[in-house]
Amino acid sequence: MELSPDIHPHRRFNPLLGEYVLVSPHRANRPWLGQVEDPQKYDTPAYDPKCYLCPGNPRTSGHRNPDYASIFSFSNDFAAVLPPPLPTLASVPHPLLQIEPVVGACDVVVFHPRHDLTLARLGDVEIMNVIEEWCKIYIERGYLPGIQHVQIFENKGSIMGCSNPHPHCQVWSTSAIPTLVAKEFDSLKHYSLSDKSVSSPDAPKGPRGRPCLLCDYAHLEASDPSATRVVVKNNDWIAVVPWWAIWPFEILLLPYRRHVQSLLNLSTTEKLSLARIISQITIRYDNLFSCSFPYSMGIHQRSTPQKDSKEEDGHDVAHLHFHFEPPLLRSATVKKFLVGYELMAEPQRDITPEQAASRLAACSNVHFTNAMP
Amino acid sequence: MELSPDIHPHRRFNPLLGEYVLVSPHRANRPWLGQVEDPQKYDTPAYDPKCYLCPGNPRTSGHRNPDYASIFSFSNDFAAVLPPPLPTLASVPHPLLQIEPVVGACDVVVFHPRHDLTLARLGDVEIMNVIEEWCKIYIERGYLPGIQHVQIFENKGSIMGCSNPHPHCQVWSTSAIPTLVAKEFDSLKHYSLSDKSVSSPDAPKGPRGRPCLLCDYAHLEASDPSATRVVVKNNDWIAVVPWWAIWPFEILLLPYRRHVQSLLNLSTTEKLSLARIISQITIRYDNLFSCSFPYSMGIHQRSTPQKDSKEEDGHDVAHLHFHFEPPLLRSATVKKFLVGYELMAEPQRDITPEQAASRLAACSNVHFTNAMP
Ligand SMILES: O=P(O)(O)O[C@H]1O[C@H](CO)[C@@H](O)[C@H](O)[C@H]1O
Ligand SMILES: O=P(O)(O)O[C@H]1O[C@H](CO)[C@@H](O)[C@H](O)[C@H]1O
Repeated sequence: MELSPDIHPHRRFNPLLGEYVLVSPHRANRPWLGQVEDPQKYDTPAYDPKCYLCPGNPRTSGHRNPDYASIFSFSNDFAAVLPPPLPTLASVPHPLLQIEPVVGACDVVVFHPRHDLTLARLGDVEIMNVIEEWCKIYIERGYLPGIQHVQIFENKGSIMGCSNPHPHCQVWSTSAIPTLVAKEFDSLKHYSLSDKSVSSPDAPKGPRGRPCLLCDYAHLEASDPSATRVVVKNNDWIAVVPWWAIWPFEILLLPYRRHVQSLLNLSTTEKLSLARIISQITIRYDNLFSCSFPYSMGIHQRSTPQKDSKEEDGHDVAHLHFHFEPPLLRSATVKKFLVGYELMAEPQRDITPEQAASRLAACSNVHFTNAMP
Repeated sequence: MELSPDIHPHRRFNPLLGEYVLVSPHRANRPWLGQVEDPQKYDTPAYDPKCYLCPGNPRTSGHRNPDYASIFSFSNDFAAVLPPPLPTLASVPHPLLQIEPVVGACDVVVFHPRHDLTLARLGDVEIMNVIEEWCKIYIERGYLPGIQHVQIFENKGSIMGCSNPHPHCQVWSTSAIPTLVAKEFDSLKHYSLSDKSVSSPDAPKGPRGRPCLLCDYAHLEASDPSATRVVVKNNDWIAVVPWWAIWPFEILLLPYRRHVQSLLNLSTTEKLSLARIISQITIRYDNLFSCSFPYSMGIHQRSTPQKDSKEEDGHDVAHLHFHFEPPLLRSATVKKFLVGYELMAEPQRDITPEQAASRLAACSNVHFTNAMP
């Protein structure tokens, strides 16, 4: 009997993290008797007098927000890391009790004055503003002495621990390179240096003409005639449910025509096509279950901007990409729980990435709230 | 300024997984405006005619449960892996699209006929029955040809994706060693072989007289005069909030007097003291926020039982331990979300492990439902 990925349980390998995922395609048929979530509806008002992110409103810190018109950033009132100086460490208490101080900054970026406009409901130009703001903070924080990594991420929806529905993202900048980022970086380095390259001759190449794992993967998906894992693609960008996806409708978004280290290397055209594809991804997400689709999104790129364009610092193997990790599985109210087996052994998924991609690809490009009669 | 772990953000290292956790002790003070959960109350009936785990009731598969009196196991009706034969794989489609077939078995172990009796409300002898059943399944499944790992775990509470409140655990046995297990195993091996051992002369030793990471860690915590991370300890076992805990009230439970590879190496006395400490952990958990405390629990030990006691198969570096990973942070209704930053960069926690341990250690040994007037 030959393995048929749509029928037989199997494992797939994630080359970015060096980890496996267990895929159990037949399991989506089991009845669900467990917890159901409140659906994330589009019933938020355009302005909420109690929201600490709306224009003109007071924040917990006592500050009052300006009457901003497009985008608005500020330093988080409850930051997870604090500014320098770095505390000193007299000695590690025991070799098994390793500890190190961390300093940095936590910023909040509010996408738009409107309390109710998620990325899926913003226009391309408004999303462009968000991209420009990401670039600005990435430079500002990344150039600070001692900062080693700038992490941009969005938690969308209360089910994803987001405590305010007003659309916003966060930027945590730290004096250390975080675990998962370091792991991806190691994999990219290793692939670039490996002689067992599987690079196709027409795939874009990384620095020093070496193969790049993500250039190769993006090229592979972009040139697959059946496009089984492609959700949406444009001139510069491709969005796929990756071969090794953990979350049911996980998406990896990345440039596929050339090696791009960070947001700062994008042309204006590429930023515009990025805005368009972000819009198309988030619209499809919302349309899938006719709700405000929850997810965590994160941007991986060079940890900090390149300070000198001639400098070869080893970080140039980084290839800009976005992870979208949404929890919903069957409907607006039934999510996938990554619990016991996942926490103790290995992530497990119930539908194949190909099934997920084809459902997302089939969703309309027009947001369901606009398509209503 | 010297680093003060109760005040300053810092990172701690997890030597079992080779990963860091970001600790932000000051952050527990921020107001919580996000999602609240339904508290897990003790209002379930002793018998539920609709429950597919209660004695005598029908299951989805059409089978009817026996009228069992103490413990009851069966093969999961919606198993994540299917029994052999292993499907064959003609060829991997592309080196970046790695796939492998998996077979195995998924079992369900119902702890007790009573629909409402969680581990925290069972007596020591009843928990002994559960431990004996774990041993039985571990042997039965672990001896099957082709099975490489037997993973015992419990998801407790609907917030942890458990779809039936009738207390039970699961056993997933697979033809592959899962990612996280393999990682822990590598760390244990590496530590055992390393010459830079930090083993104290009076700590128990692993196989061939070599140091064991978990023997050393357990010994370190057990002999710490201030016992800052100890929740409860008895003659054989110690339960700590580990130095590198991710979840707010995470617990690591392990034997600290000698190197123990698996449940099968325990004496009856040690099984009884294990039953006692499991009871004490779960009672304290319930008492912390006066609710049925949700968690995922997992047992890590040798992947499968030793087939020949003289055999040295390299798996003998495994040291039996239990992980308890509970999501609650502030109360029965406010959990810690491991989302954006955690999924994209690194786990982050809001209270220190020492603060968590001292709160659990201060909880009563008597279950709150029994302590009521
Ligand atoms: O098998 P159950 O209890 O129905 O399912 C639960 O545990 C499994 C193993 O951790 C998870 O994969 C599921 O997402 C969760 O809902
Ligand atoms: O900073 P927020 O949005 O209040 O908090 C949210 O995101 C953080 C970063 O992912 C998490 O650590 C918190 O658990 C979550 O509730």
